[in-house]
Amino acid sequence: MFRNSKVIGFDADDTLWVNEPYFKELEAEFCELLQDYLPEKESSKILFQTEVNNIELYGYGVKAFMLSLIESAIKISKKNVPVQVIEKIIELGKQQLNKPVILLDGVEKVLRDLTQKNYKLIVATKGDLLDQERKLQKSGIEKYFHHIEIMSNKNDSDYQKLLKHLEIKPEEFVMIGNSLKSDILPVLNIGGTAIYIPFHTVWEHESVHPENIHNGNYTEVKSIEEIIGLF
Amino acid sequence: MFRNSKVIGFDADDTLWVNEPYFKELEAEFCELLQDYLPEKESSKILFQTEVNNIELYGYGVKAFMLSLIESAIKISKKNVPVQVIEKIIELGKQQLNKPVILLDGVEKVLRDLTQKNYKLIVATKGDLLDQERKLQKSGIEKYFHHIEIMSNKNDSDYQKLLKHLEIKPEEFVMIGNSLKSDILPVLNIGGTAIYIPFHTVWEHESVHPENIHNGNYTEVKSIEEIIGLF
Repeated sequence: MFRNSKVIGFDADDTLWVNEPYFKELEAEFCELLQDYLPEKESSKILFQTEVNNIELYGYGVKAFMLSLIESAIKISKKNVPVQVIEKIIELGKQQLNKPVILLDGVEKVLRDLTQKNYKLIVATKGDLLDQERKLQKSGIEKYFHHIEIMSNKNDSDYQKLLKHLEIKPEEFVMIGNSLKSDILPVLNIGGTAIYIPFHTVWEHESVHPENIHNGNYTEVKSIEEIIGLF
Repeated sequence: MFRNSKVIGFDADDTLWVNEPYFKELEAEFCELLQDYLPEKESSKILFQTEVNNIELYGYGVKAFMLSLIESAIKISKKNVPVQVIEKIIELGKQQLNKPVILLDGVEKVLRDLTQKNYKLIVATKGDLLDQERKLQKSGIEKYFHHIEIMSNKNDSDYQKLLKHLEIKPEEFVMIGNSLKSDILPVLNIGGTAIYIPFHTVWEHESVHPENIHNGNYTEVKSIEEIIGLF
């Protein structure tokens, strides 16, 4: 399956390092801050709706999340939220941007192996540009990657642009990630190869039902270390 | 000077299209909203300081600006700002993200000319990834560019990374832009060629004093159309 592979793209958040659990923690703190106005579950729903409404305009990442948290706090409190809560949201968001980067098990071993086998490795991720670059630097695994591609979205056309930019054919590209919606299906759609590694926590907006994928270019593994045997 | 040039990088904001005036307008509205607390000039200073403090964490672009506006409003009002003002800031920020893209005079003519001469053109810009991609799409000039590079910063090392990514030597790269600090000096530092096109409005944080630059790889032009004669 990987005979023609030249470039291997790795999703970053929850594929290389822990991410979504940080968002969930911040969301929980947010809902607690607003529990005088609405039960936590209700606040969570309003936040999700606000985030989804804002995606087209803001894109992905922590700054977009902070702005949606502030907007949701105003909605949830019917404009009664104290300024102190807005201040707290900004403080928590800044803390999130400064969180340590925790690599998932086996990541460095896999990167070392694929580098030795002479594949060109890139990071292909959504999110805030600066935040993702900072995480890559902090991670200690920057040296394995040719470069980082920050994508505003991960639809078919975004991957087509990526291949044009990399100057390779679809069959020369392999994508590895934890989101069927963002890392796997669009890559298969445009003729690339994809390896799915599920992660225990997925943002609702990213989750698709993992029906059976009948595509010869698709592989699912339980942990990233299994990849070594594939190439 | 341009004998070895292969790739020409264009800065986007205030080089290809109008940008800084939109930020100035929003800043003026913001200071007006807070004039009950402080004179507009004072608010403007606090905003600038907040933005500069946040650059390392937030990077550039409208979302970073919105978050700094909200933080500044809290500071300026000593935590007395009404929620309605926060709401208004979010609304104004969203409007800014939806502003029309106004190309500067002569831009399309220059891009058409350089494309016909077979240079590889790229956009190399700071700012929000999604916002810059959206502006490029709206602008109608996307077709002239091989791709868009969103850079978290524009220091020497960032341009070095860019060249590595483009797989070219410094002498094969020309950068064109309106910021001496971001588009010109770092490119000259790493051995590239640079063309400076001043724009009437520059953000204070970007402005350096245009001392005489004694570098054989440096050119200043008054308008982008002059570039045609250089290549």
